[in-house]
Amino acid sequence: MQDSPERRDGSTSTSGVAGQARQDQVRAAALRLFKEKGYHATSMRDIAEAVGINKGSLYSYIKSKEDLLIPVFEQAQGVLTSQIAAIAADSSLTPTLKLKGAIHAHVMAVADNLDVLTVYLSEWRQLASESLAINRRQRETYARLFHQILRDGIASGEFREMDTRIVMLGMIGMCNYLFRWYRPDGRLTPDQVADELIDMVMRGVSSQV
Amino acid sequence: MQDSPERRDGSTSTSGVAGQARQDQVRAAALRLFKEKGYHATSMRDIAEAVGINKGSLYSYIKSKEDLLIPVFEQAQGVLTSQIAAIAADSSLTPTLKLKGAIHAHVMAVADNLDVLTVYLSEWRQLASESLAINRRQRETYARLFHQILRDGIASGEFREMDTRIVMLGMIGMCNYLFRWYRPDGRLTPDQVADELIDMVMRGVSSQV
Repeated sequence: MQDSPERRDGSTSTSGVAGQARQDQVRAAALRLFKEKGYHATSMRDIAEAVGINKGSLYSYIKSKEDLLIPVFEQAQGVLTSQIAAIAADSSLTPTLKLKGAIHAHVMAVADNLDVLTVYLSEWRQLASESLAINRRQRETYARLFHQILRDGIASGEFREMDTRIVMLGMIGMCNYLFRWYRPDGRLTPDQVADELIDMVMRGVSSQV
Repeated sequence: MQDSPERRDGSTSTSGVAGQARQDQVRAAALRLFKEKGYHATSMRDIAEAVGINKGSLYSYIKSKEDLLIPVFEQAQGVLTSQIAAIAADSSLTPTLKLKGAIHAHVMAVADNLDVLTVYLSEWRQLASESLAINRRQRETYARLFHQILRDGIASGEFREMDTRIVMLGMIGMCNYLFRWYRPDGRLTPDQVADELIDMVMRGVSSQV
């Protein structure tokens, strides 16, 4: 694969389709290195070497290491937030089915984005305040949708009376924490993990004694 | 407060009682700064200023920033591991009471050590491999004791059949994750948070349908 941003058609590879592909490749390599070595221990040179380009060329694709964190954070939360928004908005689902769907989506999101989430949950202090604000709004949206599902379930009689905020935070923590222990080559698939956690959670909130 | 390690009785304050107190003060200030600014953004000068001594004197108490992480990690895990060991060893307790006790101890440990755990859970990559090994052993001990409580509860008929490893990891994650959202000046005391989480967890594992 060519390394130079100058291409035969005169466009630069940083703006064309090939440039986008290389940029995606740079981000993926950076994510992997951040997870393995930590954000701070990863140098621009490490990222360039992992992609097989020289450090000078790397700057055609990203301005700085800090630049890489923002899309990482937005990707991690954006995907999950849009999934739970779709579940919450689906009027064909009962609160019980919505809660099951939300836990399942959350577990799958963590399992599918272990690299992204490891950086996100470890390195959030490195974000510029503007990005932190976007990040906080995404988290608040997610929490609000999740919280509403619990309240709807109490209103419908499916869920018991409970402190919905604490239960919500407990469940979100349980799901987020997968990033510390879930291994793709482990004993269970993400679906199996999700089923086990859903089982515990649904018993935990059910109004049936 | 005096800054010089030289004291009137000829001993140095770094080895005497006053030295120990100052060292504790240095560690506490470092922990607070690590949490506020992050481990990497905190300089030795910041720590010295927070304690009100000059940077040169600081080196009488700690060799490097890295030096501060090891006691931080060991403190965070050691306290909780010894508590769960005491609970697990108490033959007067049923598995139900042991599990309640373990969740309560875990929630209290997180709430009482927010600074320590924030550093611990964010900065574990910075540890030397020797410290990581100690850390891993402590975690494994903790997990083994917790896991055994769940298995004992199934054996006694108090808990339902379940994947005890996933349930254990879900519960530990739920408790650990408090460090991200629990605020000492918030709506609930740690005891109230623990009660709410215990209520969900006990319903989640109970064999009573």
